[in-house]
Amino acid sequence: MALDQTWYTEQWAGQGSAISLKIAKKVHDEQSQYQRIEIYETETFGTLMTLDGLVMVTDRDNFVYHEMMSHPALFTHPAPKRVLIIGGGDCGTLREVLKHSTVEQADQVELDERVTRVAEQFFPELCEKNADPRARLHFTDGIQWVADAKPDSYDVIIVDSTDPVGPAAGLFSETFYMNCFRALRPRGIVVGQSESPLFHPDLIVSMHRAMRAAGFADTATLQFHQVTYPSGWWSCTMACKAGSLATIREDAATGKDFPTRYYNAALHTAARALPEFLVQALR
Amino acid sequence: MALDQTWYTEQWAGQGSAISLKIAKKVHDEQSQYQRIEIYETETFGTLMTLDGLVMVTDRDNFVYHEMMSHPALFTHPAPKRVLIIGGGDCGTLREVLKHSTVEQADQVELDERVTRVAEQFFPELCEKNADPRARLHFTDGIQWVADAKPDSYDVIIVDSTDPVGPAAGLFSETFYMNCFRALRPRGIVVGQSESPLFHPDLIVSMHRAMRAAGFADTATLQFHQVTYPSGWWSCTMACKAGSLATIREDAATGKDFPTRYYNAALHTAARALPEFLVQALR
Repeated sequence: MALDQTWYTEQWAGQGSAISLKIAKKVHDEQSQYQRIEIYETETFGTLMTLDGLVMVTDRDNFVYHEMMSHPALFTHPAPKRVLIIGGGDCGTLREVLKHSTVEQADQVELDERVTRVAEQFFPELCEKNADPRARLHFTDGIQWVADAKPDSYDVIIVDSTDPVGPAAGLFSETFYMNCFRALRPRGIVVGQSESPLFHPDLIVSMHRAMRAAGFADTATLQFHQVTYPSGWWSCTMACKAGSLATIREDAATGKDFPTRYYNAALHTAARALPEFLVQALR
Repeated sequence: MALDQTWYTEQWAGQGSAISLKIAKKVHDEQSQYQRIEIYETETFGTLMTLDGLVMVTDRDNFVYHEMMSHPALFTHPAPKRVLIIGGGDCGTLREVLKHSTVEQADQVELDERVTRVAEQFFPELCEKNADPRARLHFTDGIQWVADAKPDSYDVIIVDSTDPVGPAAGLFSETFYMNCFRALRPRGIVVGQSESPLFHPDLIVSMHRAMRAAGFADTATLQFHQVTYPSGWWSCTMACKAGSLATIREDAATGKDFPTRYYNAALHTAARALPEFLVQALR
Protein backbone atom coordinates (compact mmCIF):
# COMPACT_ATOMS: atom_id res chain seq x y z
CA MET A 1 0.00 0.00 0.00
CA ALA A 2 1.20 3.52 -0.66
CA LEU A 3 2.41 5.65 2.25
CA ASP A 4 0.81 9.02 2.85
CA GLN A 5 2.53 12.32 3.52
CA THR A 6 3.11 11.48 7.19
CA TRP A 7 6.08 9.33 6.11
CA TYR A 8 9.60 10.41 5.28
CA THR A 9 10.98 8.31 2.43
CA GLU A 10 14.54 7.94 1.17
CA GLN A 11 14.89 6.24 -2.17
CA TRP A 12 18.15 4.30 -2.23
CA ALA A 13 19.83 5.77 -5.29
CA GLY A 14 19.95 3.39 -8.21
CA GLN A 15 18.75 0.47 -6.10
CA GLY A 16 15.00 0.48 -6.81
CA SER A 17 14.36 0.35 -3.09
CA ALA A 18 13.54 2.77 -0.31
CA ILE A 19 13.14 3.10 3.43
CA SER A 20 10.42 5.11 5.09
CA LEU A 21 10.03 6.39 8.63
CA LYS A 22 6.71 7.54 10.08
CA ILE A 23 6.97 11.19 11.03
CA ALA A 24 5.28 12.90 13.97
CA LYS A 25 6.43 16.35 12.83
CA LYS A 26 9.17 18.27 11.10
CA VAL A 27 10.95 20.45 13.64
CA HIS A 28 13.65 22.15 11.59
CA ASP A 29 14.40 22.94 7.96
CA GLU A 30 17.20 25.12 6.66
CA GLN A 31 19.37 25.53 3.61
CA SER A 32 22.95 25.95 4.73
CA GLN A 33 25.74 27.12 2.47
CA TYR A 34 26.28 23.49 1.49
CA GLN A 35 23.07 21.51 1.83
CA ARG A 36 19.52 21.29 3.08
CA ILE A 37 19.34 20.24 6.72
CA GLU A 38 16.04 18.85 8.00
CA ILE A 39 15.09 17.53 11.41
CA TYR A 40 12.04 15.36 12.07
CA GLU A 41 10.53 13.75 15.10
CA THR A 42 9.71 10.21 14.03
CA GLU A 43 7.24 7.90 15.71
CA THR A 44 9.66 5.09 16.55
CA PHE A 45 13.20 6.14 15.60
CA GLY A 46 13.38 9.28 17.73
CA THR A 47 14.86 12.37 16.12
CA LEU A 48 15.99 12.11 12.50
CA MET A 49 18.44 14.36 10.63
CA THR A 50 18.54 14.36 6.86
CA LEU A 51 21.00 16.16 4.57
CA ASP A 52 19.71 16.86 1.08
CA GLY A 53 16.97 14.32 1.78
CA LEU A 54 19.27 11.47 2.86
CA VAL A 55 19.18 9.92 6.35
CA MET A 56 22.24 10.94 8.36
CA VAL A 57 21.33 9.99 11.89
CA THR A 58 18.41 8.79 14.00
CA ASP A 59 18.26 8.48 17.77
CA ARG A 60 17.41 4.80 17.57
CA ASP A 61 20.15 3.31 15.46
CA ASN A 62 23.07 5.76 15.33
CA PHE A 63 24.85 3.88 18.13
CA VAL A 64 25.81 1.09 15.75
CA TYR A 65 27.46 3.36 13.21
CA HIS A 66 29.23 5.62 15.67
CA GLU A 67 30.58 2.76 17.74
CA MET A 68 31.78 0.81 14.70
CA MET A 69 33.45 3.86 13.12
CA SER A 70 35.50 4.48 16.25
CA HIS A 71 36.13 1.57 18.62
CA PRO A 72 37.53 -1.02 16.18
CA ALA A 73 40.19 1.44 14.95
CA LEU A 74 40.97 2.72 18.44
CA PHE A 75 41.23 -0.77 19.96
CA THR A 76 43.44 -1.91 17.06
CA HIS A 77 45.92 0.96 17.32
CA PRO A 78 48.39 0.18 20.12
CA ALA A 79 48.13 3.60 21.79
CA PRO A 80 45.86 6.11 20.05
CA LYS A 81 46.59 9.64 21.29
CA ARG A 82 45.83 12.03 18.45
CA VAL A 83 42.72 11.35 16.40
CA LEU A 84 41.38 13.17 13.34
CA ILE A 85 37.74 12.92 12.31
CA ILE A 86 36.86 14.07 8.79
CA GLY A 87 33.18 14.96 8.52
CA GLY A 88 31.24 13.58 11.47
CA GLY A 89 29.37 16.84 11.97
CA ASP A 90 26.73 15.25 14.21
CA CYS A 91 29.56 14.66 16.72
CA GLY A 92 28.52 11.10 17.54
CA THR A 93 31.85 9.66 16.41
CA LEU A 94 33.70 12.33 18.40
CA ARG A 95 31.78 11.30 21.50
CA GLU A 96 32.83 7.66 21.09
CA VAL A 97 36.46 8.59 20.38
CA LEU A 98 36.66 10.64 23.57
CA LYS A 99 35.49 7.70 25.64
CA HIS A 100 39.05 6.39 25.17
CA SER A 101 41.24 7.69 27.97
CA THR A 102 44.35 7.24 25.81
CA VAL A 103 43.14 9.99 23.47
CA GLU A 104 44.78 13.35 24.17
CA GLN A 105 43.38 15.32 21.26
CA ALA A 106 40.60 14.80 18.74
CA ASP A 107 40.34 17.16 15.79
CA GLN A 108 37.00 17.11 14.05
CA VAL A 109 37.03 18.70 10.61
CA GLU A 110 33.52 19.20 9.27
CA LEU A 111 32.82 21.28 6.19
CA ASP A 112 29.41 22.55 7.28
CA GLU A 113 29.30 24.20 10.69
CA ARG A 114 25.51 24.30 10.53
CA VAL A 115 25.34 20.48 10.75
CA THR A 116 27.12 20.61 14.08
CA ARG A 117 25.09 23.55 15.40
CA VAL A 118 21.85 21.82 14.46
CA ALA A 119 23.09 18.57 16.04
CA GLU A 120 23.92 20.45 19.24
CA GLN A 121 20.31 21.60 19.33
CA PHE A 122 18.52 18.38 18.35
CA PHE A 123 20.99 15.61 19.26
CA PRO A 124 22.47 16.94 22.52
CA GLU A 125 23.52 13.48 23.69
CA LEU A 126 25.72 13.04 20.57
CA CYS A 127 27.35 16.39 21.33
CA GLU A 128 27.94 15.84 25.02
CA LYS A 129 31.71 15.65 24.54
CA ASN A 130 31.97 18.78 22.37
CA ALA A 131 33.11 20.79 25.39
CA ASP A 132 35.70 18.19 26.37
CA PRO A 133 39.07 20.02 26.46
CA ARG A 134 40.50 17.32 24.17
CA ALA A 135 37.93 18.09 21.45
CA ARG A 136 38.79 20.64 18.75
CA LEU A 137 36.08 21.49 16.27
CA HIS A 138 37.20 22.91 12.93
CA PHE A 139 34.83 23.90 10.13
CA THR A 140 36.69 23.62 6.89
CA ASP A 141 37.47 21.23 4.06
CA GLY A 142 38.70 17.85 5.34
CA ILE A 143 40.50 16.86 2.15
CA GLN A 144 42.57 20.04 2.32
CA TRP A 145 43.13 19.55 6.06
CA VAL A 146 44.73 16.17 5.49
CA ALA A 147 46.77 17.49 2.55
CA ASP A 148 48.10 20.27 4.80
CA ALA A 149 48.58 18.13 7.92
CA LYS A 150 52.08 17.79 9.34
CA PRO A 151 53.63 14.38 8.65
CA ASP A 152 53.38 11.94 11.56
CA SER A 153 50.78 14.02 13.35
CA TYR A 154 47.88 11.57 13.89
CA ASP A 155 47.46 8.06 15.23
CA VAL A 156 44.00 7.45 13.81
CA ILE A 157 42.09 9.18 11.00
CA ILE A 158 38.34 8.48 10.83
CA VAL A 159 36.53 9.38 7.61
CA ASP A 160 32.94 9.83 8.74
CA SER A 161 31.66 11.09 5.44
CA THR A 162 28.57 11.15 3.29
CA ASP A 163 28.27 8.99 0.17
CA PRO A 164 31.14 9.08 -2.36
CA VAL A 165 29.50 11.64 -4.62
CA GLY A 166 29.97 15.41 -4.75
CA PRO A 167 32.38 16.91 -2.22
CA ALA A 168 32.84 13.55 -0.43
CA ALA A 169 34.09 11.72 -3.55
CA GLY A 170 37.65 12.90 -2.91
CA LEU A 171 37.61 11.11 0.45
CA PHE A 172 37.73 7.76 -1.35
CA SER A 173 40.68 8.50 -3.69
CA GLU A 174 44.21 7.18 -3.68
CA THR A 175 45.52 10.75 -3.38
CA PHE A 176 43.52 11.23 -0.20
CA TYR A 177 44.83 7.97 1.27
CA MET A 178 48.39 8.98 0.35
CA ASN A 179 47.89 12.18 2.32
CA CYS A 180 46.45 10.16 5.20
CA PHE A 181 49.49 7.87 5.06
CA ARG A 182 51.80 10.86 5.31
CA ALA A 183 49.80 12.49 8.12
CA LEU A 184 49.72 9.30 10.17
CA ARG A 185 52.38 8.22 12.62
CA PRO A 186 54.23 4.93 11.98
CA ARG A 187 51.55 2.69 13.57
CA GLY A 188 48.72 4.85 12.23
CA ILE A 189 45.30 3.65 11.09
CA VAL A 190 42.77 5.21 8.73
CA VAL A 191 39.16 4.04 8.67
CA GLY A 192 36.36 5.21 6.40
CA GLN A 193 32.71 4.37 6.04
CA SER A 194 32.47 2.17 2.97
CA GLU A 195 28.77 1.88 2.13
CA SER A 196 26.73 -1.30 1.63
CA PRO A 197 28.40 -4.66 0.91
CA LEU A 198 25.28 -5.69 -1.03
CA PHE A 199 24.80 -2.47 -2.99
CA HIS A 200 28.40 -1.25 -3.37
CA PRO A 201 30.89 -4.14 -3.34
CA ASP A 202 32.87 -2.48 -6.12
CA LEU A 203 33.43 0.59 -3.96
CA ILE A 204 34.80 -1.59 -1.16
CA VAL A 205 37.15 -3.38 -3.54
CA SER A 206 38.36 -0.05 -4.94
CA MET A 207 38.97 1.30 -1.42
CA HIS A 208 41.21 -1.65 -0.57
CA ARG A 209 43.08 -1.18 -3.81
CA ALA A 210 43.54 2.57 -3.28
CA MET A 211 44.67 2.09 0.33
CA ARG A 212 47.23 -0.54 -0.66
CA ALA A 213 48.44 1.63 -3.53
CA ALA A 214 48.89 4.50 -1.07
CA GLY A 215 51.32 2.35 0.89
CA PHE A 216 49.24 0.88 3.70
CA ALA A 217 50.44 -2.52 4.93
CA ASP A 218 47.09 -4.14 5.71
CA THR A 219 43.45 -3.44 4.91
CA ALA A 220 40.19 -4.86 6.26
CA THR A 221 36.47 -4.30 5.89
CA LEU A 222 34.15 -4.67 8.88
CA GLN A 223 30.43 -5.14 8.32
CA PHE A 224 27.64 -4.06 10.65
CA HIS A 225 23.90 -3.42 10.83
CA GLN A 226 22.86 0.15 10.11
CA VAL A 227 19.12 -0.06 9.69
CA THR A 228 18.42 3.39 8.26
CA TYR A 229 21.29 3.44 5.73
CA PRO A 230 20.78 1.99 2.24
CA SER A 231 20.08 -1.77 2.51
CA GLY A 232 20.61 -1.66 6.30
CA TRP A 233 23.84 -3.56 5.67
CA TRP A 234 26.82 -1.27 6.17
CA SER A 235 30.57 -1.36 6.45
CA CYS A 236 33.75 0.49 7.26
CA THR A 237 37.11 -0.16 5.66
CA MET A 238 40.35 0.24 7.54
CA ALA A 239 44.06 0.38 6.73
CA CYS A 240 47.20 0.43 8.88
CA LYS A 241 50.71 1.62 8.06
CA ALA A 242 52.41 -1.31 9.80
CA GLY A 243 51.55 -4.63 11.38
CA SER A 244 48.23 -6.41 10.98
CA LEU A 245 44.68 -5.26 11.58
CA ALA A 246 43.91 -8.74 12.90
CA THR A 247 45.85 -7.94 16.05
CA ILE A 248 43.63 -5.98 18.39
CA ARG A 249 44.11 -4.83 21.99
CA GLU A 250 41.92 -7.67 23.19
CA ASP A 251 42.35 -7.01 26.91
CA ALA A 252 41.59 -3.32 26.58
CA ALA A 253 38.54 -4.00 24.41
CA THR A 254 37.23 -6.68 26.76
CA GLY A 255 37.88 -4.58 29.85
CA LYS A 256 36.84 -1.23 28.41
CA ASP A 257 35.85 1.27 31.08
CA PHE A 258 32.87 2.72 29.21
CA PRO A 259 29.55 1.26 28.10
CA THR A 260 28.64 0.43 24.52
CA ARG A 261 25.42 -0.86 23.01
CA TYR A 262 26.73 -2.58 19.87
CA TYR A 263 30.51 -2.88 20.12
CA ASN A 264 32.27 -5.53 22.16
CA ALA A 265 35.56 -7.33 21.66
CA ALA A 266 33.97 -10.47 20.20
CA LEU A 267 31.89 -8.45 17.76
CA HIS A 268 34.97 -6.47 16.72
CA THR A 269 36.72 -9.62 15.54
CA ALA A 270 33.50 -11.06 14.14
CA ALA A 271 32.79 -7.97 12.05
CA ARG A 272 35.89 -8.78 9.99
CA ALA A 273 34.31 -12.03 8.77
CA LEU A 274 32.81 -11.17 5.39
CA PRO A 275 30.20 -12.88 3.25
CA GLU A 276 31.63 -15.26 0.70
CA PHE A 277 30.75 -13.06 -2.28
CA LEU A 278 32.81 -10.22 -0.79
CA VAL A 279 35.68 -12.50 0.19
CA GLN A 280 35.86 -13.57 -3.43
CA ALA A 281 35.56 -10.02 -4.76
CA LEU A 282 38.46 -8.95 -2.54
CA ARG A 283 40.69 -11.83 -3.57
CA MET B 1 9.03 12.29 -1.24
CA ALA B 2 6.06 9.98 -1.50
CA LEU B 3 6.29 6.87 -3.64
CA ASP B 4 3.75 6.31 -6.38
CA GLN B 5 1.82 3.15 -7.16
CA THR B 6 4.77 1.60 -9.00
CA TRP B 7 6.27 0.70 -5.62
CA TYR B 8 5.49 -2.24 -3.39
CA THR B 9 5.65 -1.18 0.27
CA GLU B 10 5.74 -3.29 3.41
CA GLN B 11 5.12 -1.42 6.62
CA TRP B 12 7.10 -3.06 9.41
CA ALA B 13 4.38 -3.80 11.93
CA GLY B 14 4.52 -1.59 14.98
CA GLN B 15 7.90 -0.17 13.99
CA GLY B 16 6.89 3.06 12.25
CA SER B 17 9.11 2.11 9.34
CA ALA B 18 8.75 0.50 5.94
CA ILE B 19 10.67 -0.86 2.99
CA SER B 20 9.67 -0.34 -0.61
CA LEU B 21 10.73 -2.05 -3.80
CA LYS B 22 10.17 -0.59 -7.25
CA ILE B 23 7.91 -2.86 -9.25
CA ALA B 24 8.06 -3.53 -12.98
CA LYS B 25 4.85 -5.58 -12.93
CA LYS B 26 2.73 -7.92 -10.88
CA VAL B 27 2.82 -11.36 -12.46
CA HIS B 28 0.68 -13.45 -10.11
CA ASP B 29 -2.01 -12.92 -7.49
CA GLU B 30 -4.06 -15.61 -5.79
CA GLN B 31 -5.88 -16.26 -2.57
CA SER B 32 -4.98 -19.73 -1.36
CA GLN B 33 -6.80 -21.56 1.40
CA TYR B 34 -4.48 -19.88 3.88
CA GLN B 35 -3.22 -16.60 2.50
CA ARG B 36 -2.83 -14.21 -0.38
CA ILE B 37 0.14 -15.06 -2.57
CA GLU B 38 1.48 -12.35 -4.86
CA ILE B 39 4.43 -12.37 -7.23
CA TYR B 40 6.04 -9.23 -8.63
CA GLU B 41 8.89 -8.53 -10.97
CA THR B 42 10.89 -5.79 -9.29
CA GLU B 43 13.33 -3.44 -10.98
CA THR B 44 16.42 -4.40 -8.96
CA PHE B 45 15.57 -7.30 -6.62
CA GLY B 46 14.40 -9.76 -9.26
CA THR B 47 11.25 -11.70 -8.53
CA LEU B 48 9.46 -10.99 -5.25
CA MET B 49 6.95 -13.20 -3.41
CA THR B 50 4.71 -11.75 -0.74
CA LEU B 51 2.32 -13.59 1.58
CA ASP B 52 -0.52 -11.48 2.93
CA GLY B 53 1.45 -8.43 1.84
CA LEU B 54 4.69 -9.35 3.62
CA VAL B 55 7.99 -9.98 1.81
CA MET B 56 8.88 -13.68 1.85
CA VAL B 57 11.59 -13.95 -0.75
CA THR B 58 13.35 -11.96 -3.47
CA ASP B 59 15.82 -13.24 -6.02
CA ARG B 60 18.45 -10.77 -4.91
CA ASP B 61 18.79 -11.38 -1.19
CA ASN B 62 17.24 -14.77 -0.35
CA PHE B 63 20.67 -16.44 -0.45
CA VAL B 64 21.58 -14.92 2.90
CA TYR B 65 18.53 -16.24 4.71
CA HIS B 66 18.50 -19.69 3.16
CA GLU B 67 22.21 -20.25 3.72
CA MET B 68 22.08 -19.06 7.32
CA MET B 69 19.01 -21.14 8.16
CA SER B 70 20.71 -24.32 6.99
CA HIS B 71 24.53 -24.43 6.90
CA PRO B 72 25.30 -23.33 10.48
CA ALA B 73 23.05 -26.06 11.92
CA LEU B 74 24.27 -28.70 9.46
CA PHE B 75 27.95 -27.89 9.99
CA THR B 76 27.45 -27.91 13.76
CA HIS B 77 25.74 -31.30 13.91
CA PRO B 78 28.43 -34.04 13.77
CA ALA B 79 26.68 -36.09 11.07
CA PRO B 80 23.31 -34.77 9.88
CA LYS B 81 21.41 -37.48 8.01
CA ARG B 82 17.71 -36.83 8.55
CA VAL B 83 16.52 -33.25 8.36
CA LEU B 84 13.06 -31.80 8.94
CA ILE B 85 12.09 -28.40 7.56
CA ILE B 86 8.95 -26.82 9.00
CA GLY B 87 7.51 -24.23 6.63
CA GLY B 88 10.04 -23.27 3.99
CA GLY B 89 7.51 -23.50 1.19
CA ASP B 90 9.68 -21.60 -1.27
CA CYS B 91 12.09 -24.57 -1.06
CA GLY B 92 15.22 -22.42 -0.81
CA THR B 93 16.18 -23.92 2.55
CA LEU B 94 15.57 -27.42 1.20
CA ARG B 95 17.92 -26.71 -1.66
CA GLU B 96 20.70 -25.67 0.73
CA VAL B 97 20.12 -28.66 3.01
CA LEU B 98 20.44 -31.07 0.10
CA LYS B 99 23.82 -29.62 -0.82
CA HIS B 100 25.12 -31.62 2.16
CA SER B 101 26.13 -35.09 1.01
CA THR B 102 25.65 -36.46 4.55
CA VAL B 103 21.91 -35.82 4.31
CA GLU B 104 19.95 -38.95 3.43
CA GLN B 105 16.43 -37.61 3.80
CA ALA B 106 14.89 -34.14 4.08
CA ASP B 107 11.23 -33.83 5.00
CA GLN B 108 9.70 -30.47 4.21
CA VAL B 109 6.39 -29.83 5.96
CA GLU B 110 4.68 -26.76 4.57
CA LEU B 111 1.08 -25.93 5.43
CA ASP B 112 0.21 -24.27 2.13
CA GLU B 113 0.94 -26.34 -0.96
CA ARG B 114 0.18 -23.34 -3.15
CA VAL B 115 3.28 -21.53 -1.86
CA THR B 116 5.45 -24.35 -3.15
CA ARG B 117 3.62 -24.64 -6.45
CA VAL B 118 3.92 -20.90 -7.04
CA ALA B 119 7.61 -21.03 -6.06
CA GLU B 120 8.17 -23.85 -8.54
CA GLN B 121 6.76 -21.58 -11.24
CA PHE B 122 8.42 -18.27 -10.31
CA PHE B 123 11.54 -19.30 -8.34
CA PRO B 124 12.68 -22.39 -10.25
CA GLU B 125 16.26 -22.10 -9.00
CA LEU B 126 15.08 -22.36 -5.37
CA CYS B 127 13.16 -25.51 -6.28
CA GLU B 128 15.91 -27.22 -8.25
CA LYS B 129 16.33 -29.91 -5.58
CA ASN B 130 12.62 -30.69 -5.22
CA ALA B 131 13.02 -33.74 -7.44
CA ASP B 132 16.05 -34.99 -5.50
CA PRO B 133 15.21 -38.52 -4.29
CA ARG B 134 16.16 -37.46 -0.75
CA ALA B 135 13.52 -34.68 -0.74
CA ARG B 136 10.04 -35.43 0.61
CA LEU B 137 7.48 -32.69 0.35
CA HIS B 138 4.53 -32.86 2.74
CA PHE B 139 1.72 -30.33 2.84
CA THR B 140 0.26 -30.35 6.31
CA ASP B 141 0.57 -28.69 9.71
CA GLY B 142 4.17 -28.62 10.94
CA ILE B 143 3.31 -28.28 14.61
CA GLN B 144 1.25 -31.46 14.44
CA TRP B 145 3.95 -33.18 12.40
CA VAL B 146 6.51 -32.62 15.13
CA ALA B 147 4.03 -33.66 17.85
CA ASP B 148 3.41 -36.91 15.95
CA ALA B 149 7.03 -37.55 14.97
CA LYS B 150 8.71 -40.71 16.22
CA PRO B 151 11.20 -40.07 19.01
CA ASP B 152 14.83 -39.93 17.85
CA SER B 153 13.85 -39.57 14.21
CA TYR B 154 15.64 -36.38 13.09
CA ASP B 155 19.14 -34.95 13.37
CA VAL B 156 18.24 -31.36 12.51
CA ILE B 157 14.91 -29.53 12.60
CA ILE B 158 14.77 -26.19 10.77
CA VAL B 159 11.85 -23.88 11.54
CA ASP B 160 11.63 -21.73 8.42
CA SER B 161 8.45 -19.96 9.43
CA THR B 162 6.64 -16.69 9.03
CA ASP B 163 6.40 -14.19 11.89
CA PRO B 164 5.27 -15.47 15.31
CA VAL B 165 1.65 -14.43 14.85
CA GLY B 166 -1.33 -16.50 13.66
CA PRO B 167 -0.61 -20.13 12.74
CA ALA B 168 3.16 -19.67 13.17
CA ALA B 169 2.92 -18.52 16.81
CA GLY B 170 2.94 -22.14 18.02
CA LEU B 171 6.35 -22.62 16.43
CA PHE B 172 7.92 -20.43 19.11
CA SER B 173 6.41 -22.13 22.18
CA GLU B 174 7.99 -24.31 24.83
CA THR B 175 5.56 -27.11 23.93
CA PHE B 176 6.79 -27.07 20.36
CA TYR B 177 10.42 -27.17 21.46
CA MET B 178 9.65 -30.09 23.80
CA ASN B 179 8.26 -31.98 20.84
CA CYS B 180 11.33 -31.07 18.81
CA PHE B 181 13.52 -32.34 21.67
CA ARG B 182 11.68 -35.65 21.65
CA ALA B 183 11.77 -35.98 17.85
CA LEU B 184 15.48 -35.25 17.70
CA ARG B 185 18.21 -37.84 18.03
CA PRO B 186 20.70 -37.52 20.92
CA ARG B 187 22.98 -35.00 19.15
CA GLY B 188 20.05 -33.24 17.52
CA ILE B 189 19.79 -29.53 16.73
CA VAL B 190 16.77 -27.30 16.22
CA VAL B 191 17.10 -23.89 14.57
CA GLY B 192 14.37 -21.32 14.00
CA GLN B 193 14.26 -17.92 12.36
CA SER B 194 14.12 -15.43 15.23
CA GLU B 195 13.25 -12.07 13.73
CA SER B 196 15.14 -8.78 14.16
CA PRO B 197 17.59 -8.23 17.04
CA LEU B 198 16.77 -4.52 16.92
CA PHE B 199 12.99 -4.83 16.69
CA HIS B 200 12.37 -8.09 18.58
CA PRO B 201 15.04 -8.70 21.24
CA ASP B 202 12.36 -9.90 23.66
CA LEU B 203 11.34 -12.66 21.26
CA ILE B 204 14.94 -13.84 21.03
CA VAL B 205 15.28 -13.89 24.81
CA SER B 206 12.02 -15.84 25.14
CA MET B 207 13.15 -18.37 22.54
CA HIS B 208 16.33 -19.10 24.48
CA ARG B 209 14.30 -19.49 27.66
CA ALA B 210 11.74 -21.81 26.04
CA MET B 211 14.46 -23.92 24.40
CA ARG B 212 16.33 -24.31 27.70
CA ALA B 213 13.11 -25.11 29.51
CA ALA B 214 12.39 -27.80 26.91
CA GLY B 215 15.63 -29.51 27.89
CA PHE B 216 18.14 -28.33 25.32
CA ALA B 217 21.74 -28.19 26.56
CA ASP B 218 22.96 -25.11 24.69
CA THR B 219 21.37 -22.25 22.77
CA ALA B 220 22.79 -19.58 20.48
CA THR B 221 21.57 -16.77 18.27
CA LEU B 222 23.29 -15.99 14.98
CA GLN B 223 22.74 -12.63 13.32
CA PHE B 224 22.86 -11.89 9.62
CA HIS B 225 21.88 -9.32 7.00
CA GLN B 226 18.48 -9.87 5.42
CA VAL B 227 17.84 -6.65 3.55
CA THR B 228 14.16 -7.12 2.70
CA TYR B 229 13.03 -8.38 6.13
CA PRO B 230 12.01 -5.88 8.83
CA SER B 231 15.01 -3.69 9.78
CA GLY B 232 17.27 -5.69 7.43
CA TRP B 233 18.89 -7.12 10.57
CA TRP B 234 17.84 -10.70 11.05
CA SER B 235 18.67 -13.74 13.18
CA CYS B 236 18.20 -17.42 13.74
CA THR B 237 18.27 -19.10 17.13
CA MET B 238 19.58 -22.60 17.62
CA ALA B 239 19.55 -25.25 20.35
CA CYS B 240 21.29 -28.62 20.72
CA LYS B 241 20.42 -31.61 22.89
CA ALA B 242 24.01 -32.28 23.90
CA GLY B 243 27.43 -30.70 23.63
CA SER B 244 28.08 -27.11 22.66
CA LEU B 245 26.99 -25.08 19.65
CA ALA B 246 30.40 -23.41 19.71
CA THR B 247 31.96 -26.61 18.37
CA ILE B 248 31.47 -26.71 14.64
CA ARG B 249 32.81 -29.09 11.97
CA GLU B 250 35.42 -26.55 10.98
CA ASP B 251 37.20 -28.71 8.41
CA ALA B 252 33.97 -29.68 6.68
CA ALA B 253 32.75 -26.08 6.64
CA THR B 254 36.06 -24.77 5.32
CA GLY B 255 36.35 -27.53 2.73
CA LYS B 256 32.70 -27.68 1.73
CA ASP B 257 32.18 -29.15 -1.73
CA PHE B 258 29.45 -26.72 -2.80
CA PRO B 259 29.42 -22.99 -3.44
CA THR B 260 27.78 -20.41 -1.18
CA ARG B 261 27.41 -16.67 -1.56
CA TYR B 262 27.07 -15.61 2.11
CA TYR B 263 28.05 -18.54 4.32
CA ASN B 264 31.61 -19.52 5.05
CA ALA B 265 33.25 -21.08 8.10
CA ALA B 266 34.59 -17.78 9.43
CA LEU B 267 31.22 -16.09 9.05
CA HIS B 268 29.52 -19.00 10.80
CA THR B 269 31.56 -18.44 13.94
CA ALA B 270 31.35 -14.67 13.57
CA ALA B 271 27.55 -14.68 13.32
CA ARG B 272 27.45 -15.89 16.92
CA ALA B 273 29.02 -12.66 18.16
CA LEU B 274 26.11 -10.49 19.23
CA PRO B 275 25.74 -6.78 19.85
CA GLU B 276 26.32 -5.75 23.44
CA PHE B 277 22.66 -4.87 24.06
CA LEU B 278 21.63 -8.41 23.11
CA VAL B 279 24.46 -10.02 25.07
CA GLN B 280 23.16 -8.18 28.11
CA ALA B 281 19.53 -9.05 27.42
CA LEU B 282 20.47 -12.74 27.17
CA ARG B 283 22.47 -12.75 30.40
